[in-house]
Amino acid sequence: MADAKYDVLGIGNAIFDVLVQTDEGFLGRHGMTKGGMALIDEARATAIYADMGPATEMSGGSAANTIVGIANLGARAAYVGKVRDDQIGRLYTHDIRAAGVAFETPAAAGGPATGCSYILVTPDGERTMNTYLGAAQDLTASDIDSAQIAAASVIYLEGYLWDPKSAKEAFVKAATIAHGAGRQVALTLSDSFCVDRYRDEFLDLMRKGTVDLVFANEAELHSLYQTSDFDTALKQLQSDTKLGVVTRSEKGCVVASKDGAVAVPAFPIQKLVDTTGAGDLFAAGFLFGLVRNAGHENAGRLGALAAAEVIQHIGARPQVSLKELAQQNGLPV
Amino acid sequence: MADAKYDVLGIGNAIFDVLVQTDEGFLGRHGMTKGGMALIDEARATAIYADMGPATEMSGGSAANTIVGIANLGARAAYVGKVRDDQIGRLYTHDIRAAGVAFETPAAAGGPATGCSYILVTPDGERTMNTYLGAAQDLTASDIDSAQIAAASVIYLEGYLWDPKSAKEAFVKAATIAHGAGRQVALTLSDSFCVDRYRDEFLDLMRKGTVDLVFANEAELHSLYQTSDFDTALKQLQSDTKLGVVTRSEKGCVVASKDGAVAVPAFPIQKLVDTTGAGDLFAAGFLFGLVRNAGHENAGRLGALAAAEVIQHIGARPQVSLKELAQQNGLPV
Repeated sequence: MADAKYDVLGIGNAIFDVLVQTDEGFLGRHGMTKGGMALIDEARATAIYADMGPATEMSGGSAANTIVGIANLGARAAYVGKVRDDQIGRLYTHDIRAAGVAFETPAAAGGPATGCSYILVTPDGERTMNTYLGAAQDLTASDIDSAQIAAASVIYLEGYLWDPKSAKEAFVKAATIAHGAGRQVALTLSDSFCVDRYRDEFLDLMRKGTVDLVFANEAELHSLYQTSDFDTALKQLQSDTKLGVVTRSEKGCVVASKDGAVAVPAFPIQKLVDTTGAGDLFAAGFLFGLVRNAGHENAGRLGALAAAEVIQHIGARPQVSLKELAQQNGLPV
Repeated sequence: MADAKYDVLGIGNAIFDVLVQTDEGFLGRHGMTKGGMALIDEARATAIYADMGPATEMSGGSAANTIVGIANLGARAAYVGKVRDDQIGRLYTHDIRAAGVAFETPAAAGGPATGCSYILVTPDGERTMNTYLGAAQDLTASDIDSAQIAAASVIYLEGYLWDPKSAKEAFVKAATIAHGAGRQVALTLSDSFCVDRYRDEFLDLMRKGTVDLVFANEAELHSLYQTSDFDTALKQLQSDTKLGVVTRSEKGCVVASKDGAVAVPAFPIQKLVDTTGAGDLFAAGFLFGLVRNAGHENAGRLGALAAAEVIQHIGARPQVSLKELAQQNGLPV
């Protein structure tokens, strides 16, 4: 197995975030399910945006947020995702490259605009996402560069990739190349409604060993196994995948393998502002710990630390050096 | 004099802000003057942006920030400024309208892109702005709607309007219409380097009575009168304009008329994060107090309160209801 050029390479829907703090009433008025990610078409995007207050914009996308967090912690990271060659696509490309991430996926020269998510943050800090996939729909297997995939120790894929028409082919192609090169493949289940849409396919990926490591939050885990009992679901996860990491908000996380499960507490915060990116940044810290061979418990602590930083401000990208933050907290970086 | 439809109408350069927290070294490397606003061309914008870290974007523009603050406080506000009909122009238009501001200036169908300011925020909270005017250069006298101008109690103009080629004609046209309708005209001097460029013209506007009320910070006041002595400069300001308001950062402000000067303290803050928009939001609070006939001292307090809110987070637009904040602090709204 050749030395890896990248520690982690992520593949996901490249999405620009349009964030606004709003009241609960907005969600009800627009028939939104609080805390979820709903796919919307251009007409609904226009209607929602027209009713939203003044917004703040920044680059997002689940796997992209994770990859930016990994680079911010000091590892070598790459990203594959599709934007258009429009103004927002150029902002997106700048931000991810400026974070130190290799990003070479060609921007679409035609077709829909760069994807946007209209994110409503309620006073309790919960975020409700409405995503117009836009150019992210045009990610195909041809965007997967075999040499680049084979050069990453871990590839990280988001369940959201099951939504665009042809991205799942890109997903499976990348996983196959990675395993051929002796690399590891990680998957996040992304969202409980996403799990509802693709439950059987996700279970199939896990049981066939297409993915080695699965990230899920409690809602996603319960949706995957259609049970409300955590322990039952966790046991099934342990039998279905080599390594499962379940995040439980303020209750911390559980890292589960066939050898057993270890619980890691959440990192204390001063004030919850916006949960956008919490799971993404948890995955960043965990994967960073994994590629640094820090052990599951330290990997969980790094995940908890990165998640704690991102939920204390608006937006899903870190606003400080996570590397320095980890050092200040005595965690290995 | 007809009843006013708007309390305040602002005219300015419509600029989208691209903000990044950076170290002092960045400013030195790019030859930037800390705390100032430098005009840049597209080539320099590209070079600066390429070297900047991951950014956060939101709508800005000095007078626009002020007008949004006034609407946020609960007054009727309108804005005149030029964007292009591009993606960023649409974000800009959404944000100002979503803030409750009437904004009807037609977007340019051709020519340069919507203007952007690349804003570097150093660890001390100071902001250094690099502005590519873009479509803001195409604001002309034909964008001034006489009926709309005449329908505003106060029109508020930014000194930055002297930079684009033809905006000063729009400025003078608007001031003339306003005075013809018995309205008041306010001007902010914008930036000490801007004052350096247009000192004689600004003094002329004041001495000929084209403007009735002038906002300046200490650096702008000293630049205007080319003196380092505050009291000397203040006396000259009192003789040159009906009402002068000088902001002095943590020392508060001085409201000076021919009848005398009153000092108002700054509003206490917990942590200075980003000074972007401090002067703009001070002007918002002050003008709001003025149109509500709250008296100079209360107007100064409202200005101090609005400025204190905006410097405690990234970006130049308020993140809370200033109206509620003022009520909580016993100020008239």
